[in-house]
Amino acid sequence: MNNADKIYSLAVSGVQKLIPYTPGKPIEELERELGLSHIIKLASNENPLGPGKKALAAIQETLKDLALYPDGNGFNLKQALAKKYAVDMSQITLGNGSNEILELVARAFLTPEFEVVFSQHAFAVYPLVTQAIGAKAVVAPALNYGHDLDAMLQRVTDKTRLVFIANPNNPTGTLLAHADVEAFIAALPDTCICVLDEAYCEFVGDGSADTSIAWLNLYPNLLITRTFSKAYGLAGLRVGYGLSSPQLADILNRVRQPFNNNMLALAAAEAALTDTEHLQNTIAVNAQGMQFITEGFKKLGLEWIPSAGNFVLVNMKQPAIPIYEALLRKGVIVRPVGVYELPNHLRVTIGTEAENQQFLQALAKVTNV
Amino acid sequence: MNNADKIYSLAVSGVQKLIPYTPGKPIEELERELGLSHIIKLASNENPLGPGKKALAAIQETLKDLALYPDGNGFNLKQALAKKYAVDMSQITLGNGSNEILELVARAFLTPEFEVVFSQHAFAVYPLVTQAIGAKAVVAPALNYGHDLDAMLQRVTDKTRLVFIANPNNPTGTLLAHADVEAFIAALPDTCICVLDEAYCEFVGDGSADTSIAWLNLYPNLLITRTFSKAYGLAGLRVGYGLSSPQLADILNRVRQPFNNNMLALAAAEAALTDTEHLQNTIAVNAQGMQFITEGFKKLGLEWIPSAGNFVLVNMKQPAIPIYEALLRKGVIVRPVGVYELPNHLRVTIGTEAENQQFLQALAKVTNV
Repeated sequence: MNNADKIYSLAVSGVQKLIPYTPGKPIEELERELGLSHIIKLASNENPLGPGKKALAAIQETLKDLALYPDGNGFNLKQALAKKYAVDMSQITLGNGSNEILELVARAFLTPEFEVVFSQHAFAVYPLVTQAIGAKAVVAPALNYGHDLDAMLQRVTDKTRLVFIANPNNPTGTLLAHADVEAFIAALPDTCICVLDEAYCEFVGDGSADTSIAWLNLYPNLLITRTFSKAYGLAGLRVGYGLSSPQLADILNRVRQPFNNNMLALAAAEAALTDTEHLQNTIAVNAQGMQFITEGFKKLGLEWIPSAGNFVLVNMKQPAIPIYEALLRKGVIVRPVGVYELPNHLRVTIGTEAENQQFLQALAKVTNV
Repeated sequence: MNNADKIYSLAVSGVQKLIPYTPGKPIEELERELGLSHIIKLASNENPLGPGKKALAAIQETLKDLALYPDGNGFNLKQALAKKYAVDMSQITLGNGSNEILELVARAFLTPEFEVVFSQHAFAVYPLVTQAIGAKAVVAPALNYGHDLDAMLQRVTDKTRLVFIANPNNPTGTLLAHADVEAFIAALPDTCICVLDEAYCEFVGDGSADTSIAWLNLYPNLLITRTFSKAYGLAGLRVGYGLSSPQLADILNRVRQPFNNNMLALAAAEAALTDTEHLQNTIAVNAQGMQFITEGFKKLGLEWIPSAGNFVLVNMKQPAIPIYEALLRKGVIVRPVGVYELPNHLRVTIGTEAENQQFLQALAKVTNV
């Protein structure tokens, strides 16, 4: 071991074994690699309509103050969220994406002696934040590609400090019934924090997106996480939030960096909350696109997992990586999900009508149908 | 203990005792509280000239992509930094402010069994990131308000995993000689990471700002942190970086969230690096303002600590909080530093000529000179 490699031995043991999250390829990087242009990216569940006009206007108004630190308490955005959800501002934790909320809860409550329960095929960040601390990940087998809440509950012990549920789940798009989720939370011991990750809840078509908010009054160990990166079209700015009991929010806010949210994110998110037109357009375009793409799969003889999100998993019934690579060469980026133990599936984000068409045409060519 | 308060007992012990950083008051908040307008803020060491034109132009070009995730690898910004400092891209860690780099290094290398050495009167985030892990803070007494490197080295044991040095130091503005800093780093055991926090290095007038970069080839345990929040005028966007051995950067990048830097920050910082005119203006305005303000102190019979940064500590020779509050009521925000064991001092950021005048006038009135 030379002197520099000794650095690795100094890292905490969880970090020594940590393999970071692999993001979807940025368009720019792929263009560099393949020498292509006009690439479409359906790999990261972003909003194909872009940010809304109100968010963009709020950014323009805020640019003049960019040399100042942001409001470390996020007063205005918290006030807007509190009003929207009829919660107290003390129940809100703002994050640099909801990803950061997932990380904060792990850092605030986990040590290597604790266990974390989550589902097979659930979001890759759950094992990562667990591993970074060196806590023990306990993975419950999936049921029809979604969460098996009974199997999860069976794995909760007095060592379980955190449970993660994604609803809808990423990458599979599966949806749990609200009644089942609430029964699960009610059955948890009060020494276990339940993180309910609702990053995609706005796309659920039944109008029940905010059902879970009422549970906050009943379960002080519940943390609901949401984001402006998906339906609100602000992934580039990084802003998400947690809703919980004031006590749980107090703990998370202690661990949070003082200026974890940038100034433009705070302003844009606040404005985006008022832009119901953009949100409704986004949801409508997604519903239409989901129908178009799944009909395309049907014509190609491909099976897919019914999805409540803005993406869909298609089963290629063969190793998906060569198909992913062939699509790349045709200028379409989708997401392979081998890391989720789904080596034959590809995750496709619903795009604009033109993007969906281009994707289906490319898919038809590379699958030789 | 009611059910909700039980949440506190579940947090890791370091976090239970954590008292978060208190940011400088945002102008907006003070205006709300006092019903004032036209407030000037000289409390957070921000750039009084605002962001540069090139950074703002880069933001405008990037807005169209805001619904996409940022490049999680920060390729373009890393490439620009690598070129500027003649380092390899693998030596760079990008942070959501350099604050995040300070946090990443603590999380990657500390457990409760280790100790962290830093100086009395040094930046408040060092004890915070130490406390969040539950590691032991070992504070070396200051020498003339600055770091006493001998006293620090005496406190380094085989339990010391991290040492923080701020040069120039915040909040005191003191500057260590490069030769002394290098000798200190050379004397550290190779089991100890040295964080050299150079957030204010661009303001050091002697042209030696980049001297430390050459040490990276010699000391794989050295981490230099820098920021775009001060001289580059981009505090609102949150972007900083660490420079180190590739091995140390690899560890930090594993712990980093995949999209910790927002898209506008990446673009603006890259452009800001090329805007030497704005940087030179900033440095010149700061030097003039420092002279003007310290001459003002002299006229008022006040002592100050000579500062190499864009701020200065003035000694009120009486408890500073009442003077801070009197200045607030006159629409001037400065920073009390009682939390730094300096209850009689106020930290004043160098502003524009007009701001510096307004501050000195208000100070003269509240001190009844």
